[in-house]
Amino acid sequence: MKIAMIGAGGWGTAMMISLAGRHKDLVLYCRKPETAEKLNRERENKEYLPGVHLPEVIRITSDLKEAVEGAGCVVICTPSKAVADTAGKIAKWLEKDAVVVSASKGLADDEGHRLSEVIAQKVAGITDRIVALSGPNHAEEVGAGLPCATVAASEVPEAVQIVQDLFMSPVFRVYRSDDIRGVEYGGALKNIMALACGVLDGIKLGDNSRAALMTRGLVEMTRFGVRFGAKMNTFFGLSGMGDLVVTCTSSHSRNHTAGVMMGEGKTAKEIVEGTNMVVEGMRTALLVHEIAKREHIDMPITEEVCCLINGEHTARKALEVLMARAKKAESETYPTESL
Amino acid sequence: MKIAMIGAGGWGTAMMISLAGRHKDLVLYCRKPETAEKLNRERENKEYLPGVHLPEVIRITSDLKEAVEGAGCVVICTPSKAVADTAGKIAKWLEKDAVVVSASKGLADDEGHRLSEVIAQKVAGITDRIVALSGPNHAEEVGAGLPCATVAASEVPEAVQIVQDLFMSPVFRVYRSDDIRGVEYGGALKNIMALACGVLDGIKLGDNSRAALMTRGLVEMTRFGVRFGAKMNTFFGLSGMGDLVVTCTSSHSRNHTAGVMMGEGKTAKEIVEGTNMVVEGMRTALLVHEIAKREHIDMPITEEVCCLINGEHTARKALEVLMARAKKAESETYPTESL
Repeated sequence: MKIAMIGAGGWGTAMMISLAGRHKDLVLYCRKPETAEKLNRERENKEYLPGVHLPEVIRITSDLKEAVEGAGCVVICTPSKAVADTAGKIAKWLEKDAVVVSASKGLADDEGHRLSEVIAQKVAGITDRIVALSGPNHAEEVGAGLPCATVAASEVPEAVQIVQDLFMSPVFRVYRSDDIRGVEYGGALKNIMALACGVLDGIKLGDNSRAALMTRGLVEMTRFGVRFGAKMNTFFGLSGMGDLVVTCTSSHSRNHTAGVMMGEGKTAKEIVEGTNMVVEGMRTALLVHEIAKREHIDMPITEEVCCLINGEHTARKALEVLMARAKKAESETYPTESL
Repeated sequence: MKIAMIGAGGWGTAMMISLAGRHKDLVLYCRKPETAEKLNRERENKEYLPGVHLPEVIRITSDLKEAVEGAGCVVICTPSKAVADTAGKIAKWLEKDAVVVSASKGLADDEGHRLSEVIAQKVAGITDRIVALSGPNHAEEVGAGLPCATVAASEVPEAVQIVQDLFMSPVFRVYRSDDIRGVEYGGALKNIMALACGVLDGIKLGDNSRAALMTRGLVEMTRFGVRFGAKMNTFFGLSGMGDLVVTCTSSHSRNHTAGVMMGEGKTAKEIVEGTNMVVEGMRTALLVHEIAKREHIDMPITEEVCCLINGEHTARKALEVLMARAKKAESETYPTESL
């Protein structure tokens, strides 16, 4: 089966390399012709995945039609805000019943839509085989051939089975899931907690508080997801807990790094302007907090992250607020829908 | 209320220091008179919690009667294998309806009993107010006054409420739980996964695989616990996921350190003999694996840890076995009782 990868960032490149051992018809699309030409010449993605050879079996193109036409599986791996646009562009060359995999993480727009939702809109009538792929998968490690595990989720069982069969290898273990909502919310919301963990690390509060924050943060993510149709257990799987743990404990994460700076006293504005970084977690926190307020979902950590971003609380004050909350039973804080 | 702490290791000492800010009748018991005398003279537990001052309000004694008599709350914080014996010894001075808190982690004996079970046997007829306290709580950080969160669990609601009221502070957040089984199994079984994570780190397999191992390890712990009456959600709380994360990512853990050595090629025998360490995770792995086999509970990670301990598999071989398991849906691996 021909597999097209739309987006040649670190993760897209790493997935292609992982697939190259077992597949012969692979096309990696990148938007700029000069980048495609450079990747072809150097057989290395020096900007996003340096030091890893791109096997010859991977064709590289900046021609979207060439990439998508005839592909049984098209993987979208662009920045989250570009996913809707990308899905719209591939639609006209997309094969009937092709599997479309969303491998990006984040929310699609300022209304909080999931990536698979906006993809489904754009490819409606061509295919409903849409799969989200998400888990604790740093591109650097996957590119280097280190072992990892991930989740492929879809409402269409055949689609998820195809993706498991295509991607699974002795070093890339894929689990199936029928809960695409849970898988996507996990990948998007964990960035809020990575930011919050960075703040704790910035004020040097130790391993105990970080573990507590991850645990309570996951419960909060679960409350949000379950309200919007996700299954609770999904958050305790690889795309939830797994991805959260790797993002919160790794120095690779931009969200975590931004949090550390905030913990050290920098304002959100200074961080965004000074480093020219896109801090996904900030955007997600503000958006999710807005929705949570509207829907009366209790998200105290997200709320304090927003207070920090908006300059309303210092990091110490945010911590005090969280520690001073009412005495609770752990079980009463889980979403009631699943109990 | 008088609070007695039985056991002056790092964790017992740290809890006493945490309680000292709000309580006036505190007694710390240590077995050896010369240790009690030394602690009293130096007001510092140099062996187990160096650098932290023991406030004067904490009385120190090696007289068990003096410690226990008149105490409304007695906390047992000895090594797990000594808990049954300790509970037996305190029984004769224990006040009627006193709360007994088990703050140790591990299984009580070679039959796999939980600590609260053996305590209950020894204090039967005197009190049934037995509480387990467990969470991501490195003693060093608690002693230093860094914030943390934990869980107090009991089948007796009044008992757990008393412990929450006694222990909760602006830096020590306590959640209540009615699932003492889940809380105790979490604290005991996480040591197996800390050992396994150490092995991965020893062969330098990266953050992705470690996060996957923690996630899948937690599912495995859950399957075991649920079979023995624990609630699934408890494993996703502070005493499960929280404690697992802190133990697997911290260099403080002896189990993790032993795992690293195994990953680097040392045998279990060499590690135990060479370092004179008690590696709780090894004992727990062998015992839990035995029970899991008998009860037909699928615990592949625990099984591979045992193969490593017994010298049947190398670390690489163990990893291959785990990665080559059948293709699965994530949901089918959760305990069916809770779905």
